[in-house]
Amino acid sequence: MSFSAGPTHESLEATRDPRLKSWIDSANDRSSDFPIQNLPFGIFTDEVNPLPRAGVAVGDWILDLAVVHRAGLIECEPVFAQSTLNAFIALGRDAWRDVRVQVSALLAADSDTLKNNTALRARALIPRASATLHLPVDIPGYTDFYSSKEHATNVGSMFRDPKNALLPNWPEMPIGYNGRASSVIVSGTPVRRPSGQIKLPDAERPVFSACRKLDIELETGFIVGAGNALGEPIDCEDAESHIFGMVLLNDWSARDIQQWEYVPLGPFNAKGFATTISPWIVTLDALEPFRAVTPKQEPEPLPYLRHTGNHAFDIELEVHLRPALAELATKLTRTNFKLMYWSMAQQLAHHTVAGCNTRVGDLMGSGTISGPTPDSCGSLLEMTWNGQRPITLDEGGERRFIEDGDELTLTGWCQGEGYRVGFGECKGVILPARSAAE
Amino acid sequence: MSFSAGPTHESLEATRDPRLKSWIDSANDRSSDFPIQNLPFGIFTDEVNPLPRAGVAVGDWILDLAVVHRAGLIECEPVFAQSTLNAFIALGRDAWRDVRVQVSALLAADSDTLKNNTALRARALIPRASATLHLPVDIPGYTDFYSSKEHATNVGSMFRDPKNALLPNWPEMPIGYNGRASSVIVSGTPVRRPSGQIKLPDAERPVFSACRKLDIELETGFIVGAGNALGEPIDCEDAESHIFGMVLLNDWSARDIQQWEYVPLGPFNAKGFATTISPWIVTLDALEPFRAVTPKQEPEPLPYLRHTGNHAFDIELEVHLRPALAELATKLTRTNFKLMYWSMAQQLAHHTVAGCNTRVGDLMGSGTISGPTPDSCGSLLEMTWNGQRPITLDEGGERRFIEDGDELTLTGWCQGEGYRVGFGECKGVILPARSAAE
Repeated sequence: MSFSAGPTHESLEATRDPRLKSWIDSANDRSSDFPIQNLPFGIFTDEVNPLPRAGVAVGDWILDLAVVHRAGLIECEPVFAQSTLNAFIALGRDAWRDVRVQVSALLAADSDTLKNNTALRARALIPRASATLHLPVDIPGYTDFYSSKEHATNVGSMFRDPKNALLPNWPEMPIGYNGRASSVIVSGTPVRRPSGQIKLPDAERPVFSACRKLDIELETGFIVGAGNALGEPIDCEDAESHIFGMVLLNDWSARDIQQWEYVPLGPFNAKGFATTISPWIVTLDALEPFRAVTPKQEPEPLPYLRHTGNHAFDIELEVHLRPALAELATKLTRTNFKLMYWSMAQQLAHHTVAGCNTRVGDLMGSGTISGPTPDSCGSLLEMTWNGQRPITLDEGGERRFIEDGDELTLTGWCQGEGYRVGFGECKGVILPARSAAE
Repeated sequence: MSFSAGPTHESLEATRDPRLKSWIDSANDRSSDFPIQNLPFGIFTDEVNPLPRAGVAVGDWILDLAVVHRAGLIECEPVFAQSTLNAFIALGRDAWRDVRVQVSALLAADSDTLKNNTALRARALIPRASATLHLPVDIPGYTDFYSSKEHATNVGSMFRDPKNALLPNWPEMPIGYNGRASSVIVSGTPVRRPSGQIKLPDAERPVFSACRKLDIELETGFIVGAGNALGEPIDCEDAESHIFGMVLLNDWSARDIQQWEYVPLGPFNAKGFATTISPWIVTLDALEPFRAVTPKQEPEPLPYLRHTGNHAFDIELEVHLRPALAELATKLTRTNFKLMYWSMAQQLAHHTVAGCNTRVGDLMGSGTISGPTPDSCGSLLEMTWNGQRPITLDEGGERRFIEDGDELTLTGWCQGEGYRVGFGECKGVILPARSAAE
């Protein structure tokens, strides 16, 4: 089978029309993360059908792509009855866009095909509340960048020199490092507090201990949709066409383990125990209306890092902390992805410029996203200035770092006129450290 | 199907008997890397059959495991007619050992089954010279350690402080970092000289340039044979049972790119363009007779890094460089794996102690293996002291770093009485940098 060369610009634009409504009522709710303009992809199971398959979030529902494909309502290669989106993504951008346009048409208020087929509808639409979301992609490689100027400045001020907080290489390239792909987990998976070597300031030798400075890092991540061959770099101007979509990402960090281990080869055990991502991949096509001006880069980057046009995206981001047994969560931070100094396109161009290949499903983290004030910082390290200025919680108590039982939730959304394109939640609760006896 | 709980200690020991001979003459050659005592696993194709499948190297031949399994001569789950060894390895240690014992019996001088079946033998034994070797495993994660004290001391002396060459964390833990799994390639794959940002000492800003300080790193790597679940560390005393086997590894490094990029998050583009491994995985079972005394560790490691017994292995290692068009290669170095300060078991225990999970097929590099003298160093950086003391080549000319057309070959072997358990070659030739026009 082969399909069209992808939908027209007009049909893509139509999926993003702010006036578009769905016959699914909850998708028309102004506060829903998943209006018909969004249509993010994920992998889910439910009690009726424990086989993982691909779905699209819409309002309070999931559209089961395997069911609507089998019923002939979506034309595509048969890639939806699978436990990851990799095969779908590997079909290429024309196919993603084509499916998105078809799903939009199927769910639009003026479409009767699925709406009026009661039996099929019952099988094709699953309440989100009754579904379990899974890691949406098999991730062959995970890279984490360090692209927020405010974050890099804060960390540099704290641990190196406030007068020369930014290292000389920082303004020249999107600094990044290889993360550990095996421990990327989906939102909702509990996270065990890590143990490791910690060196206290006055001690002669390190001790083995549960982490005492457990932290979050508020990030977004993008999923590579089209890789590149070894030795063939991706051009910066063309790099966004290699991106399938974005997720929220919490790069859990053990600050005390990190401080002792990270010189000279970078963070290792301090990060490798868990990285949580949100389950729905929001496509770049859905994010298109929310492009924002790329921050001014001074000095002008080397030619391989230059691109024209707007490559920032206006994504509001928040972090909430809810202590064990608490009813209310405290908002820790509010910031925006558009503040990022280096764009995703520049990250991908830099990652591949020496010849490194990327693959479908690769995850690239933005790095901690911090704004200029404590209440717009993406880590407790920064918010509390390494524990020196504790945060007061709404229900009482305070936090310097994360305590056992705390539930941390990242949210993110683009605000449109009368609707919002949201990411859902990226959530994790902290379990106590493994005891030595276990 | 299910099979035995693995072979007995006696039958395993029998496969390692120095007196054992094969009916395949070339396997009895004292200088062959692949005597019947070795039996390493790999993935190959040949001109007759372009489908990748698993094989065992023996003398100048490859035993096609898919063929002998189909013929009923090897009892095992059907995992050999595949393009990687992952499914075979995932069967577990009892299965690896069981297959090894069966292959040994089939090839032993006193066995007629295959030897006398001319038709089957013609299909089951492929001349190594006519085969193409492939990456033997799909590598979900690649980690590189930094476990040679001599190497870490040399690098620390060169770039930091000769008086405090070893960082304080080095003697406390096997320092490691996440490498890039996508660009791990099999021996024989040409390597394109990388380009990237280079900052010359007196320049105000970096330039984009082809690497001028291209280097090797002589390493071994081990392949994880049994992973661990997230949050459940591997015990140091038990860690070797998680290792399937070892390969040679060349961690190609662009020193000038590395120096500018690596602070604070570690090497990235300087390493991510290529890592070459040898095609045959030598099992720990074959290496068993070559255990050597673990080097004394002072201070005594923290309890999670302690193990009893001998965990070093006596593996001779060499690197040769052959310039383009040259007939003769120059031996650059000769060293030994048994010098490594941190053992593979300690590396695996450290990697997982904070909760990180590992998976079947994960590759863990030893770090550059250097001895105490320039001609036992594992990198040109050290041999030439960052280019200050060029090496003279046997055919004339000299080298500070690698030039275009140079072919670098790593070899390694354990010397037994009258035989050697070898690794074959880990080889790569350097292609010129991509020109801007490409």
